[in-house]
Amino acid sequence: MKKSLFLLIITGLSIKVSAQSTNGHDHAHDQKVYFPDVPGFYTLSCDFHMHTVFSDGSVWPNIRVQEANREGLDCISTTEHLEYQPHSKDIPHPDRNRSFELASHAARNSELIVVAGSEITRSMPPGHTNAIFIEDANPILQDNAMDAFREARKQNAFVFTNHPMWTAQRKDGIAKYEPMHLELIEKGMLHGIEVVNETTFSDEAIALALKYDLTFIGTSDIHGLTDWLYDIPHGGHRPVTLVFSAERTKEGMKAALFNKQTVVWYKDMFIGRKEWLDPLLHNSLEVSALGYDGDTSVLSVEINNPTHSHYIIQNKSDYTFHEDPSIMIIEPQSTKILSVKTLERFDSVILPFTFLNAMYAPDTYPTIFYELSTKNDPDTSN
Amino acid sequence: MKKSLFLLIITGLSIKVSAQSTNGHDHAHDQKVYFPDVPGFYTLSCDFHMHTVFSDGSVWPNIRVQEANREGLDCISTTEHLEYQPHSKDIPHPDRNRSFELASHAARNSELIVVAGSEITRSMPPGHTNAIFIEDANPILQDNAMDAFREARKQNAFVFTNHPMWTAQRKDGIAKYEPMHLELIEKGMLHGIEVVNETTFSDEAIALALKYDLTFIGTSDIHGLTDWLYDIPHGGHRPVTLVFSAERTKEGMKAALFNKQTVVWYKDMFIGRKEWLDPLLHNSLEVSALGYDGDTSVLSVEINNPTHSHYIIQNKSDYTFHEDPSIMIIEPQSTKILSVKTLERFDSVILPFTFLNAMYAPDTYPTIFYELSTKNDPDTSN
Amino acid sequence: MKKSLFLLIITGLSIKVSAQSTNGHDHAHDQKVYFPDVPGFYTLSCDFHMHTVFSDGSVWPNIRVQEANREGLDCISTTEHLEYQPHSKDIPHPDRNRSFELASHAARNSELIVVAGSEITRSMPPGHTNAIFIEDANPILQDNAMDAFREARKQNAFVFTNHPMWTAQRKDGIAKYEPMHLELIEKGMLHGIEVVNETTFSDEAIALALKYDLTFIGTSDIHGLTDWLYDIPHGGHRPVTLVFSAERTKEGMKAALFNKQTVVWYKDMFIGRKEWLDPLLHNSLEVSALGYDGDTSVLSVEINNPTHSHYIIQNKSDYTFHEDPSIMIIEPQSTKILSVKTLERFDSVILPFTFLNAMYAPDTYPTIFYELSTKNDPDTSN
Amino acid sequence: MKKSLFLLIITGLSIKVSAQSTNGHDHAHDQKVYFPDVPGFYTLSCDFHMHTVFSDGSVWPNIRVQEANREGLDCISTTEHLEYQPHSKDIPHPDRNRSFELASHAARNSELIVVAGSEITRSMPPGHTNAIFIEDANPILQDNAMDAFREARKQNAFVFTNHPMWTAQRKDGIAKYEPMHLELIEKGMLHGIEVVNETTFSDEAIALALKYDLTFIGTSDIHGLTDWLYDIPHGGHRPVTLVFSAERTKEGMKAALFNKQTVVWYKDMFIGRKEWLDPLLHNSLEVSALGYDGDTSVLSVEINNPTHSHYIIQNKSDYTFHEDPSIMIIEPQSTKILSVKTLERFDSVILPFTFLNAMYAPDTYPTIFYELSTKNDPDTSN
Repeated sequence: MKKSLFLLIITGLSIKVSAQSTNGHDHAHDQKVYFPDVPGFYTLSCDFHMHTVFSDGSVWPNIRVQEANREGLDCISTTEHLEYQPHSKDIPHPDRNRSFELASHAARNSELIVVAGSEITRSMPPGHTNAIFIEDANPILQDNAMDAFREARKQNAFVFTNHPMWTAQRKDGIAKYEPMHLELIEKGMLHGIEVVNETTFSDEAIALALKYDLTFIGTSDIHGLTDWLYDIPHGGHRPVTLVFSAERTKEGMKAALFNKQTVVWYKDMFIGRKEWLDPLLHNSLEVSALGYDGDTSVLSVEINNPTHSHYIIQNKSDYTFHEDPSIMIIEPQSTKILSVKTLERFDSVILPFTFLNAMYAPDTYPTIFYELSTKNDPDTSN
Repeated sequence: MKKSLFLLIITGLSIKVSAQSTNGHDHAHDQKVYFPDVPGFYTLSCDFHMHTVFSDGSVWPNIRVQEANREGLDCISTTEHLEYQPHSKDIPHPDRNRSFELASHAARNSELIVVAGSEITRSMPPGHTNAIFIEDANPILQDNAMDAFREARKQNAFVFTNHPMWTAQRKDGIAKYEPMHLELIEKGMLHGIEVVNETTFSDEAIALALKYDLTFIGTSDIHGLTDWLYDIPHGGHRPVTLVFSAERTKEGMKAALFNKQTVVWYKDMFIGRKEWLDPLLHNSLEVSALGYDGDTSVLSVEINNPTHSHYIIQNKSDYTFHEDPSIMIIEPQSTKILSVKTLERFDSVILPFTFLNAMYAPDTYPTIFYELSTKNDPDTSN
Repeated sequence: MKKSLFLLIITGLSIKVSAQSTNGHDHAHDQKVYFPDVPGFYTLSCDFHMHTVFSDGSVWPNIRVQEANREGLDCISTTEHLEYQPHSKDIPHPDRNRSFELASHAARNSELIVVAGSEITRSMPPGHTNAIFIEDANPILQDNAMDAFREARKQNAFVFTNHPMWTAQRKDGIAKYEPMHLELIEKGMLHGIEVVNETTFSDEAIALALKYDLTFIGTSDIHGLTDWLYDIPHGGHRPVTLVFSAERTKEGMKAALFNKQTVVWYKDMFIGRKEWLDPLLHNSLEVSALGYDGDTSVLSVEINNPTHSHYIIQNKSDYTFHEDPSIMIIEPQSTKILSVKTLERFDSVILPFTFLNAMYAPDTYPTIFYELSTKNDPDTSN
Repeated sequence: MKKSLFLLIITGLSIKVSAQSTNGHDHAHDQKVYFPDVPGFYTLSCDFHMHTVFSDGSVWPNIRVQEANREGLDCISTTEHLEYQPHSKDIPHPDRNRSFELASHAARNSELIVVAGSEITRSMPPGHTNAIFIEDANPILQDNAMDAFREARKQNAFVFTNHPMWTAQRKDGIAKYEPMHLELIEKGMLHGIEVVNETTFSDEAIALALKYDLTFIGTSDIHGLTDWLYDIPHGGHRPVTLVFSAERTKEGMKAALFNKQTVVWYKDMFIGRKEWLDPLLHNSLEVSALGYDGDTSVLSVEINNPTHSHYIIQNKSDYTFHEDPSIMIIEPQSTKILSVKTLERFDSVILPFTFLNAMYAPDTYPTIFYELSTKNDPDTSN
């Protein structure tokens, strides 16, 4: 065991950087939304649905920027309700671009990207809808709902259905599309759908996204504080839409959204199309062979998880493991050594794992293949 | 050792109640400002200085109420700047009572008491001043500073100097009073002084409070989020003024403030006058004798700290301790067994401790006496 | 949301009791092996394989007793190697019952049951084998291996194969039985097999147990300290065999073992036969309906996990969930509220869950049904 | 990223390196006894009093070595009772050097130094006494106590009184010396005294050490497991004697002990002579000026504590602090920024602090001076 312990020590150290405030408090628990890039694309963490005092939220826009920066997001949009203005007594007739203007200003010295967006707030159908990457929010405020959508299309906005599972509008919580939604889709005025909103999740919304070829969206729809709703100080996270963008720009993100290049992350579950979910998962775990243990045919494999999400993985190889059953949880920011019984000593080994906390569709789980060279024994490199 | 271990087990259990949210997160770390009452008076945790979007703060008043309730405060005042209105473009010409009105509404179903208050925001002298327990904020907004103070006095407001150590107004950070302050005091228009403001502390302000017989005040002056500034999710706390009030009412608190019945709690340090600091400290630690150990003259004494503050105590008795040096830290929400070498077996013992994290004045530390009966051996009660 | 928040508050509080030592340290993290009983049987946590200085272990037998009591075990056996005595220079020719005698003495004032046992330590075949519930260890020490097994049978011992996956005896780590093992089984001299040993797990040993109708056993085989090997102070646990016994006695446990009434718990995975695994899992989670949310058909269901194990459960009902995907992790000692979209409002609902951290056989997962009455709305009881 | 990581390091962030075991557990909480060296001398952490199965302890000597290595000690001695052999039934008539031999062997591949030692176990007077750096334990076992001491002197052993406050030998817990002790001191047969033993501390023993010019010693006297007695997994520490040695050798340590070059660390309290305590404390905190804040005369000073001990420090300068009262706790492995109101802007500043968790003698606390250059403004280096 001595040798493998040594390997463990030299390979299995994880470095945690923790900032100490002047109060002497330890921020090590602060959550950072971090996922690796995928080949050819940046992985950008985005939240395209939230509110401030400029509609029915409880914070000034600068707090939304600070929350996002503390959590490590790449992009937000403060999507105020156009039609619903409960603070109008105090903030009368606001310019509907004002929240975006203030959030942009607050973010000016950070890397956070703020995009303009509004919530078109209607009874069902079509219910609530977000239009983002808009040019001017004011003309989208219309008496007639279809006029609002036409204006959003005119501005080349990316438009998505909000919380189709909302029990205030769907007593059974079941997401459904009605003729008006189908008309919007057909006319190119609706492009995405929230499969996750705030603290709710919808298998049926996922099915709708697949049926009507819409972009998967997940948002916080935060009105109060994200720290409180998601218990971020103790390791929780807000729902985000991971956007796979060729550029770290608004244009890149917008193109990616229209092209359905997203994965939703919610309660450590990932929802996405195969072409984006597979490379994200593949890169989220770093899997490498450390070499065979002594004269046995038991291969030590290191699984390193640098992300803040856990993963529930299921062995799909023909091999069994010497220390673990086939289903395992890989904890956030951890390193695990897996002992694979390969029966013979091979020069390379392929390990397929099904990710049970990821899905293309309800009950449809991705399987990711890791190809390992067993010859890069770290012993030789030391 | 077996017997004393048994005593430990039956006496030393602390029960922690933690709520689990639907996210499965553990809120056990959430800080509660809790201190025991003192004889004849409620110990009320108050924060009389804070801001919302109605002056230069970043949250709607309801967030201030929620913060206070989460932290366990008894009373707050949202003391907007009367003269400084950086959000006037969006919130034009507000009724200066509006923040109080909204905070009161937000608190209507909780036990939190909200009192009306405003910040009279002037250059030095007199600098910034808070008037609380006011009747109407609007007439306190005056061109002439003295007129504002006269109006506050007319409303029987309690008035205190804010952050006299503020480096924007005092380059050396040294709190000083100028003739105008003394005039205000003399005319009964200034009654208290912040010895603690936000993240600052002032020995010199304490000296001024004593010299001019003013009430000690400590406040958060929070503009952003208390969780972030004080790292409350990981055990930090905001500064509070503990008010010793005969009633759990606004009237009781106001009378107590005018009567200087306060202790300030800041970074686990307590600042107060002897008549209020002594009973608070005495009751904050529960000290009792468990009995002599075997046939020795070593007395087991239990020190239970139910509060969320630590205490640094120094033995001032003639006895030494069998397991501890004379200066000890009593951790928050902990129980410690102290072994006191009393040389003989006495029926009662008096233990004096100096509290090094409490002060009447700079470098002046209180000594508290605990009188213990050594006969209430818990063995007999089992 | 208000109503369900209220439900949460009145139902979702968990009480944690933590002892504070005289050092002021918090033992809240100390792991307790706790699982509920099943109908008609006690669930007893047992570790039937470990060593002390009386063979090749590094602690006196009293430490094994203290470890077990700190971890909350019900039963241990200090199964010293009969034939392997590396400490013989210092502990010459020991009475092979001595370790049991000292462990029994150390446990005399606790509820821990200590049973006599020895490890018959042979090269492969048959490799190492434990005989427990023996009467006298000394005559089991024989030149000829079969004579040792005959003696164990004469004493009515329960006998099981140790670590059949041990790479020192199986280079490929694959558990196998050879003719000698089959002869032992046929002659009633071998009754169980370790499917888990120390830090190793064997799918192939599970298959052997099923093929040859043997009792599932999981043991620590600890030589050093369990705290260090399993990181118990930070939430880890040693492998245990949960024995379902009609009585809390040695006789009861022995009968249960011969009758294959066991489940092995290892790294929060459960391995057992359906008749024992199903009731254990059923009782490990407390699932109850809290009532329908407002006027919706979304049913709030509380899942309470009082154990120190997590559970990975997969929804197998026809309903989907309003806040969760179908696969979820239930954290140790937590309460989770599940929102079930039942489409209509029913008086009773059946929720089936597959437990992905439990297995009857490799890749064979149990499904447990929870029948809920939706009428015991806690609102009425308040 | 390289540059910003560098900036991160130099600007007051602390980096914690934590090893992850194969179980995925985080050992970040494991305590390491670490203190910086002092000018001209290594600071070596030593525990010269402990037991194994070779007298009345409960572990084999290798566990003592593993404990010491996990905790980061530099040197131990397994000081078995010569006269008290409760395990003699199982370990008959042992060579009294055997424990040392086995511990030395266990430590052969680590940096831990093991020195030979024995406990001369007598009734009072002289009570129990340890002789360390001995050549052969066997001849020290004598019928007559004085003969044992003579033999220890013949071997040039370093000899110290054990637990003079032990209530089994002193009902009042008060350490005292009797004529026999004074004779031993006078004849050069007694050189040190435990002021700390296991979980006990003695002001009176400190006074004896000073009166009779003896070396301060603090030991664990561990019989069970240090993790359990001191709760090391959750941040506790065993008592150690810090020895200031010119060499990292047995000879160096022995010379240092005879020369009284020690400080005892117990419950985060330090006890030592001025010449050794002062440089240890001075180097334990890294204090440096960061520069004046804006155009004020408030100087930012960084206090970095790389050790695993806290420090209670009291400001003794003429300056007051802008954010802290004069007594503060510096937490283990933390960085704190102190704002010093220097009234004018100086090129250099001297800050004296009294350490209230350190003592030369009962109630006699050291004051350490930090001389800071205020010109090495970190701004210029970026």
